[in-house]
Amino acid sequence: MSSDKLHETLLPKRIALPIFASDALSSVAYAPDEIFLTLGMAGGTLALTHSWMIALAVVFVMLVVVASYRQNVHAYPSGGGDYEVATVNLGPRAGLMVASALLVDYVLTVAVSISSGIQNAATALGFIRGHEAAYAVALVVLLTAMNLRGVRESGNAFALPTYAFMLGVIGMGAVGAFRHFRGTLPNAESADFELVAEHGYESLGGLALAFLLLRAFSSGCAALTGVEAISNGVPAFQKPKSKNAATTLLMMGLIAITMLLSMISLARWTGVKFADDEAVQLLREGVPVGDSYVQDPVMGQVAKAVFSDFHAGVVFISIVTGIILILAANTAFNGFPVLGSILARDGFLPRQLHSRGDRLAFSNGILILASAAALLIVIFDADVTRLIQLYIVGVFVSFTLSQIGMVRHWNGLLRLERDPRERARMIRSRVINTIGAAMSGTVLVVVLATKFIHGAGYAIAAMAVIYLIMTAINKHYAMVAKELEVVDATAQLLPARVHAIVLVSKLHKPTLRALAYARATRPQSLEALTVNVDPEETRELQEEWEARAIPVTLKALDSPYREITNPIVNYVKGMRRESPREIVVVYIPEYVVGHWWEQLLHNQSALRLRARLHFTPGVMVASVPWQLRSSEGQEDRLDSGAVPGSVRMGQ
Amino acid sequence: MSSDKLHETLLPKRIALPIFASDALSSVAYAPDEIFLTLGMAGGTLALTHSWMIALAVVFVMLVVVASYRQNVHAYPSGGGDYEVATVNLGPRAGLMVASALLVDYVLTVAVSISSGIQNAATALGFIRGHEAAYAVALVVLLTAMNLRGVRESGNAFALPTYAFMLGVIGMGAVGAFRHFRGTLPNAESADFELVAEHGYESLGGLALAFLLLRAFSSGCAALTGVEAISNGVPAFQKPKSKNAATTLLMMGLIAITMLLSMISLARWTGVKFADDEAVQLLREGVPVGDSYVQDPVMGQVAKAVFSDFHAGVVFISIVTGIILILAANTAFNGFPVLGSILARDGFLPRQLHSRGDRLAFSNGILILASAAALLIVIFDADVTRLIQLYIVGVFVSFTLSQIGMVRHWNGLLRLERDPRERARMIRSRVINTIGAAMSGTVLVVVLATKFIHGAGYAIAAMAVIYLIMTAINKHYAMVAKELEVVDATAQLLPARVHAIVLVSKLHKPTLRALAYARATRPQSLEALTVNVDPEETRELQEEWEARAIPVTLKALDSPYREITNPIVNYVKGMRRESPREIVVVYIPEYVVGHWWEQLLHNQSALRLRARLHFTPGVMVASVPWQLRSSEGQEDRLDSGAVPGSVRMGQ
Repeated sequence: MSSDKLHETLLPKRIALPIFASDALSSVAYAPDEIFLTLGMAGGTLALTHSWMIALAVVFVMLVVVASYRQNVHAYPSGGGDYEVATVNLGPRAGLMVASALLVDYVLTVAVSISSGIQNAATALGFIRGHEAAYAVALVVLLTAMNLRGVRESGNAFALPTYAFMLGVIGMGAVGAFRHFRGTLPNAESADFELVAEHGYESLGGLALAFLLLRAFSSGCAALTGVEAISNGVPAFQKPKSKNAATTLLMMGLIAITMLLSMISLARWTGVKFADDEAVQLLREGVPVGDSYVQDPVMGQVAKAVFSDFHAGVVFISIVTGIILILAANTAFNGFPVLGSILARDGFLPRQLHSRGDRLAFSNGILILASAAALLIVIFDADVTRLIQLYIVGVFVSFTLSQIGMVRHWNGLLRLERDPRERARMIRSRVINTIGAAMSGTVLVVVLATKFIHGAGYAIAAMAVIYLIMTAINKHYAMVAKELEVVDATAQLLPARVHAIVLVSKLHKPTLRALAYARATRPQSLEALTVNVDPEETRELQEEWEARAIPVTLKALDSPYREITNPIVNYVKGMRRESPREIVVVYIPEYVVGHWWEQLLHNQSALRLRARLHFTPGVMVASVPWQLRSSEGQEDRLDSGAVPGSVRMGQ
Repeated sequence: MSSDKLHETLLPKRIALPIFASDALSSVAYAPDEIFLTLGMAGGTLALTHSWMIALAVVFVMLVVVASYRQNVHAYPSGGGDYEVATVNLGPRAGLMVASALLVDYVLTVAVSISSGIQNAATALGFIRGHEAAYAVALVVLLTAMNLRGVRESGNAFALPTYAFMLGVIGMGAVGAFRHFRGTLPNAESADFELVAEHGYESLGGLALAFLLLRAFSSGCAALTGVEAISNGVPAFQKPKSKNAATTLLMMGLIAITMLLSMISLARWTGVKFADDEAVQLLREGVPVGDSYVQDPVMGQVAKAVFSDFHAGVVFISIVTGIILILAANTAFNGFPVLGSILARDGFLPRQLHSRGDRLAFSNGILILASAAALLIVIFDADVTRLIQLYIVGVFVSFTLSQIGMVRHWNGLLRLERDPRERARMIRSRVINTIGAAMSGTVLVVVLATKFIHGAGYAIAAMAVIYLIMTAINKHYAMVAKELEVVDATAQLLPARVHAIVLVSKLHKPTLRALAYARATRPQSLEALTVNVDPEETRELQEEWEARAIPVTLKALDSPYREITNPIVNYVKGMRRESPREIVVVYIPEYVVGHWWEQLLHNQSALRLRARLHFTPGVMVASVPWQLRSSEGQEDRLDSGAVPGSVRMGQ
């Protein structure tokens, strides 16, 4: 498990940064687009006048969030993920809310990152256009396969493309700035278009305008997704862990800000026109460009302008952007199963998701994540803009709750702490987290207010459903635990006698072995049992039984309806009624095949019979396996999650 | 099972007829269409000149086939289905060929009947048009549900619609004839169209023309499908079984012929123009009618003409036709699982398909049939004409082989029979069956020759694949049986000692019960085993173990990779290595839940562990179930094919 791996090998900052930053940094690939197209709804001017303002607001929030999480990192060197922080300080309910938010978010991280990656790739690879959703799903499948096969990237595998992406974007910013001030920076392809307001947004009053600005702001806040990643990974850092983690977090924040700002300025300098509904809103000499026009992402348009005389640059940008977005998606493939396993450990999700080193556990998590993401991609046709509407809510739900939790955390400590210098630091931290909480709380409200009808509502609904399911699951586990609790010693009472029954359908090796094993356990009574489905077969069996002089009496049960389960079950129940204080052991000769297709060829009566017998108290089912040659060497396949070798009544 | 039910209550001829005839009679709903549109490929004249000839040829084949099957009925009063007849007289290979053909045919019966039913229904219910495939699949799903729920029609449920259909069609023939000779029979809506040849068929030479006629003939032979049904059902008849069955068969044949001929004559009198590619081939005042024109089935067009002044008649015809076609499809839902069960009994199909009163058996068959049929309907877009191309091959493969088998049958009897009168009758029968074999063989060749490229090839391929799969399955069962055969008495040797191991994950009631049961079997050695995944948990467990003074030593296995299966399996294998002549019994405390969703909440480590342990010889796994309250009263749900109550390691 990559999570374990991270814990084994401690990371220097230069490796930790790319590992934890890919998600946060990748959002610069789509955040600017969202800002511009939202502003663009009101026509061309608003983007020019206010994109800066929005960008600065986002940057400010980013700084606050980074500052706040630096406190988390210091307070929880053990790696205080938002779920733990909220659970510990605000109780399981809050923790569960955070968890639901994060689960939804992981899914959206995959959906959004992959979709955006595909859109960027399309800038360079035209053939993708028109089939975005298909390619996106294919990519999800690929990632799933990789993660199922346990292909996890080493730190370096992360480092290279992430640094390449930083280099690319910041380098593009530098080149762009240079050419801009030299006056040699050409316009973006969309610069000459006229950008008209979307229908209904033509002439907005002050209030409506403010609302639109807020909406642009909350879309821009997509840039903040993934900032919390480091707070989960503190233990992976080299000593001094907290200090290094905090520094890395700060670096990450600053880099993200630099990249965002350079993207915004480049977009403004090259006069990028980016529209929500390009076919209608963009006019070429007064006529709408129509569906034939394909609108490249801001990143792509800017790259084409900055590297107008250097096509390799454009390709480089589009490739590294694609890769970083895939890495970002991949972080969810690591994070989701880990969180799922933690929630399963705490009894909020099915225990299968709790690893205990059981490989299937993580596989389940990966498959759930992948299918949910693929579903979203198909539903929203890999349209980043529409997916973004659902995205940011979860992030800020967990930001807010985790920050409130931190405030509580400091309050707790301050009650005990006497040393004034310590207190001073704690108070400082508490102030920061309070600001963080207030800030992210406000953003959350803004996001909800501006995006609820545009999709955030679905995200909230999904969280609510997940929350309810998790509480229900938890109730069930509690109920079972209560029921199984040992209250008195009655459970330890020894049964008086043991009756053994060996089920026989044919007289072959598995049957003989079952008989031998049953006799070896020296029960007080032992009999062989067969069901008379076909009188012919039964008589042959009895004759052979005599012929082989088998020292156990063979009893044949009648079966009016030519079926085997009920007669046996009823017979066993009858024995139980006669002597409730005694137990019945039913020996079933079963055998083991090697290949999944062989199982299809063997009827499952043994399995069904066992399932039925399990409902009768005081009955124990002992399966005596016979290994067929085909099963040799197949044992290991089981671990790789393959179907377990079939067990069936020998016949 | 309806098959059983039929055997319980013996049927009078008047009930047996509709039960067995629905399939055969229903084909009159689509056979004429196929004749006309195939002839129509060469333009309007051919249908006028030759449709009679084709019809008479089909009638002739029908008479021969009926005569031949009357011999089967006499020879096999036990109900000699084609599969039995071929197997008994020509050996398993031939039997298997017949079986493959029949399996494919059952699927096609469903696909063709339902599709045709939908097309006819569309005559009255316009809204179906354009969504035929969807409605057809829905209908298949409905039939599947009914058959899964065990809703089988009583004889009367069959009788009513079948007689209504006979009455409808023959009545329509009478009315039509009356109006025709009175000169008051109006033309069909399509009569005024000009029917031009399909591209490539404009001016056919003698040979090509003959070929087209043969093709029309083989399409028309669709009318013969289902004639063999009665030969399977002889035991269901009242005494004298064979005689009554033979009479019923004859009646059925005559009725089918009457209906076919009246449909053909009505179509000719009303001047129905029926085209393969109506949009292009039908001209209204010299211009193709185009896609807007919907071509009703011949049945519908004729009805509209005959009942021009009596709309209720049209509706009646279209309804009874729809119902009879659904009944025809339903016969396949009874026949397919029965044949599957017979083949499973003979070891050619997975044993799950062999009933032994196990309800799941038939459900499996029904589901396989339904999904295959639905797939075909979707692939061929519920287009009867294209499905027909695949249809008739199988029928004639089994006709031919079964008839050849009958000839063999008589040869065998004649070798022994001395009584001249008996011999005379046998020789007569043999002559008839020989003609039948020759005839259906010829038709089979014609069908293959004329339809192979049009789809019959697929049917052949499907049969071949099924044939190969069935032989492979048979080989496998034989191999297993051989491997399990008892050759010497070594299998009876008693193991020297019994080592018992009780697996413990928590100390709760299921664990204590498992311990008690294990102790009750008085093994030579007994120990409790837990896996040290979480040192914390393990220590708690050990302390509680001490506190409760449990008289069994608890051993904790280390698990470097934090997983449970391997340490246990390796430990057990170790014990085995030390003392191969002794057996190990592993007691697993499991518990039983009532609802499927509860299973999802309990990890399956016990199941996986058992599966793994089964691969180690000399190890017996005893599951000690603990019944949770939620499991009470849930036992019966198992029989209804619901998921069996989950068994899992208590924790």
